[in-house]
Amino acid sequence: MIATLKFTTLLLAVVVCRATQDYGYKDVEEPTLGDSQYGSLWPLPQKVQMSTVAFKLSSVSFQIVDAKESSSGASCSLLQNAYRRYDEYIFPISRMQGQNKKKAFASVSELQVWITSADSECDSYPSVTSDESYELSVDSPVAVLKAPKVWGALRGLETFSQLVYEDEYGAKSINRTEIQDFPRFTHRGLLLDSSRHFLPIKVILANLEAMSWNKFNVFHWHIVDDPSFPYMSRTFPQLSQQGAYHPYTHVYTPSDVKMIIEFARLRGIRVVSEFDTPGHTQSWGKGQKDLLTPCYSGASPSGSFGPVNPILNTTYDFMAMFFKEVSTVFPDAYIHLGGDEVDFSCWKSNPDIQKFMAQQGFGTDYSKLESFYIQRLLDIVTTTNKGYMIWQEVIDNGVKLKSNTVVHVWMGNKFEEELQKVTEAGFTTILSAPWYLDYISYGQDWQKYYKVEPLSFNGTDAQKKLVVGGEACLWGEYVDATNLTPRLWPRASAVGERLWSDKDVKDTNDAYSRLIQHRCRMVQRGIPAEPLFTGYCAHEYKGV
Amino acid sequence: MIATLKFTTLLLAVVVCRATQDYGYKDVEEPTLGDSQYGSLWPLPQKVQMSTVAFKLSSVSFQIVDAKESSSGASCSLLQNAYRRYDEYIFPISRMQGQNKKKAFASVSELQVWITSADSECDSYPSVTSDESYELSVDSPVAVLKAPKVWGALRGLETFSQLVYEDEYGAKSINRTEIQDFPRFTHRGLLLDSSRHFLPIKVILANLEAMSWNKFNVFHWHIVDDPSFPYMSRTFPQLSQQGAYHPYTHVYTPSDVKMIIEFARLRGIRVVSEFDTPGHTQSWGKGQKDLLTPCYSGASPSGSFGPVNPILNTTYDFMAMFFKEVSTVFPDAYIHLGGDEVDFSCWKSNPDIQKFMAQQGFGTDYSKLESFYIQRLLDIVTTTNKGYMIWQEVIDNGVKLKSNTVVHVWMGNKFEEELQKVTEAGFTTILSAPWYLDYISYGQDWQKYYKVEPLSFNGTDAQKKLVVGGEACLWGEYVDATNLTPRLWPRASAVGERLWSDKDVKDTNDAYSRLIQHRCRMVQRGIPAEPLFTGYCAHEYKGV
Repeated sequence: MIATLKFTTLLLAVVVCRATQDYGYKDVEEPTLGDSQYGSLWPLPQKVQMSTVAFKLSSVSFQIVDAKESSSGASCSLLQNAYRRYDEYIFPISRMQGQNKKKAFASVSELQVWITSADSECDSYPSVTSDESYELSVDSPVAVLKAPKVWGALRGLETFSQLVYEDEYGAKSINRTEIQDFPRFTHRGLLLDSSRHFLPIKVILANLEAMSWNKFNVFHWHIVDDPSFPYMSRTFPQLSQQGAYHPYTHVYTPSDVKMIIEFARLRGIRVVSEFDTPGHTQSWGKGQKDLLTPCYSGASPSGSFGPVNPILNTTYDFMAMFFKEVSTVFPDAYIHLGGDEVDFSCWKSNPDIQKFMAQQGFGTDYSKLESFYIQRLLDIVTTTNKGYMIWQEVIDNGVKLKSNTVVHVWMGNKFEEELQKVTEAGFTTILSAPWYLDYISYGQDWQKYYKVEPLSFNGTDAQKKLVVGGEACLWGEYVDATNLTPRLWPRASAVGERLWSDKDVKDTNDAYSRLIQHRCRMVQRGIPAEPLFTGYCAHEYKGV
Repeated sequence: MIATLKFTTLLLAVVVCRATQDYGYKDVEEPTLGDSQYGSLWPLPQKVQMSTVAFKLSSVSFQIVDAKESSSGASCSLLQNAYRRYDEYIFPISRMQGQNKKKAFASVSELQVWITSADSECDSYPSVTSDESYELSVDSPVAVLKAPKVWGALRGLETFSQLVYEDEYGAKSINRTEIQDFPRFTHRGLLLDSSRHFLPIKVILANLEAMSWNKFNVFHWHIVDDPSFPYMSRTFPQLSQQGAYHPYTHVYTPSDVKMIIEFARLRGIRVVSEFDTPGHTQSWGKGQKDLLTPCYSGASPSGSFGPVNPILNTTYDFMAMFFKEVSTVFPDAYIHLGGDEVDFSCWKSNPDIQKFMAQQGFGTDYSKLESFYIQRLLDIVTTTNKGYMIWQEVIDNGVKLKSNTVVHVWMGNKFEEELQKVTEAGFTTILSAPWYLDYISYGQDWQKYYKVEPLSFNGTDAQKKLVVGGEACLWGEYVDATNLTPRLWPRASAVGERLWSDKDVKDTNDAYSRLIQHRCRMVQRGIPAEPLFTGYCAHEYKGV
């Protein structure tokens, strides 16, 4: 680093703690609050050189423009939309129109955005191989953001906006800075669950927006599950008609889904849909006759149903048609197929299943039946030319998987051993086990998420390369539109930095200082991110 | 009960649980969800007789009116304001204007509100002795709400609005019902902390509104503390000028305070302000020279400050003037004087304090010095004709208290013993220890709050009578405008019912059914009360 940056303190968090009651609660140790030399940057870029030389940004004349040399021009609406967004973040108050007057001080009059490769990918969907790297050079009179693809430009625009601060007179300022940046992990995801509680479209959009501020690039949409089936299928409209909480007010229409995917694309975020089977499917059964296994009580059906019925051909006919539709609705190269937590008790109770088990020579090993189902499902999905992600049980049960399968490690218990095992078997892996944000606790739990090192397991370099990232998961039992957003941010931001920044970025005190400011920035941009601790933001949340 | 009431299900909560990870988290057992015979009533009234006979409420002609016999008329704006509020709750969609047409079915065309005592108390402030009882008789064509005072009328209007439901065609309906109701405890409070985080006015107002839906009647305003001093004093303007997070944006002006008190009064809610001394006063020291004790490091001042300096006459001059102002600004008969968690280390370090201790013959018992301070403070406040509330340490330290002092029990550890001790000494008591809502945890913690029995301690009937109620406390370390409201509701509702309803109302399953509906009602009325569990509301929260 060249020097320490002096920021005008946007906020002063007075860290004084009311002694907690003798309740047996142990708070995580409070980090010490100081000024970070990196100001409010979050997540921290890979290489940052900041000078103390500061320039002003004129609200009259500052512009974000396409560099002349850029392969991307006015026709790239992804970038034009991003320019508008970031202009509004940098100048939230209305801007005066006018000519650039001669300045008595050095200023940055332009941010030139330069897409350097021939194909900007402006009209593509982001993918697991998308190049998100960028270089940002802030100088007077011109700042330059160079990126091979639009995805890096989006990340760099966010970084640029985070460099802007207000001096003591409220003047927008930015220091001379050089940044080279790229993500440590390519898969940086957030799981939201729209089945346990329906999440209105605007809640999803608001959180996609916040994801982009934290450089997340995968929205893992756990769209249906036992409690409800809000996905409106063109092929099987009865699924949501019968299985949603309400057939009109609590569903995602094809237009809704399209809009969410496009909104995410414009922010460099993939939408990976999850249609979890054969368990977690109670809501599917309401609109699709004979899909679920009838459970028996003694010799007769009990009236309740278990997992998907794996012994009927109609099941696979249905799945083939259903996933054909899903593969066209969701452009991402991957579908998450679930496969977790299959309860065998209903299968065991059913005499037809028992007979089938005997025929197949499965004995009483119902994980073989589960594997039988999953294997056929994977074959079906393979014909749609999609890759798949699955929860870790599928591999634990020995199902044969395509080599490009992504295994999702979620069980909290000894996840390092699971990572070791899965990568030893040669599979690409993402980690969620330590990042179940639905488990709340008193105090600063962001630190717990922050301190996780995904590659701490025993394994070769080749094995570690197979860990392509992770996901923060906010399961829906206890969250809906009323509390999801403040519960998610800034806790998920901790995961965002862990997955983007260098592995040596782990100074909790420095992170605390930046995160406090980053959180206030999210609040100022309209997201009710909750406080980390006692203190305040210059601009408090305006909603209720 | 006459019969079981069949409500059209306003919501159907599908209770299916994703197995939790092996994290060592123990969820409270899930209650069983059934229909309560009491519909969505919360808190449950003392006596309810409901019939299956249902009447309709016409959106054209239904009116809330003053009964002819009522001692309160059109000049009572407290009631007129309440009529308007409850009309809007019952008919949230715009009402057609028109004449009452002849009906083919029985309906309730009027709710007559009858204040039975000569003095309605319409223009008074609620107090600890306010009569909140009421009787509600719903029949066709007229429903009658009788209450001795306006306070009971307010509670009864809320109850009436909770009886209204929609039949399957969306028609507003209400069943023939007889209710006699009164609170079990007279002090049913909620503590909010506007020092650790500043709470914008509209957040406070929104939560006063929600309090009234839950029949809370005390807003305990922990207005200042160590981190900030947002109360703008007319006498000592420097206190907030120097001690608030920001002297203009993060303060409560005299007008703000007045508005909050009036908004609360209109809902039958007392505003008890807390100005906690001698500890918790760091922010006071910024605007008031020599108020706090200078701490010493060896032989010289360290530059930091401790509790209020109890050995200077200027301290008591200041307190006299300050509390004289406070006593006029806040009309309630009580002021909360704090007195908790006094850290002696700074006093111990100071040679002037040491000398004073010796002069007074206190030896090295600094609790005697604390008592010395508190005693003088109490004498000062007594001259303002106010009563006072104090945290339990004050009595634990043996300070001599006026007989009408309210002791606030907050220490989690063995609160039953403390209740026994305090009431044995003859003091009026309120309980908060088991209701620190800032301590969050995974799962349905409302049950934990609900199951508390405040009178479970060993003591005589006379002692138990001294427990006049309790308060739910939401300390501000981790809450501000972004997350306070959903974190508070419906968790505080559990405390609300415990303090209002009969002690035998403790069926968690019945409560669960009612609370789910009550929570959706709060959401529909615009408060983002968080979900209790997987499920949905017909009308989800519309904000982000």
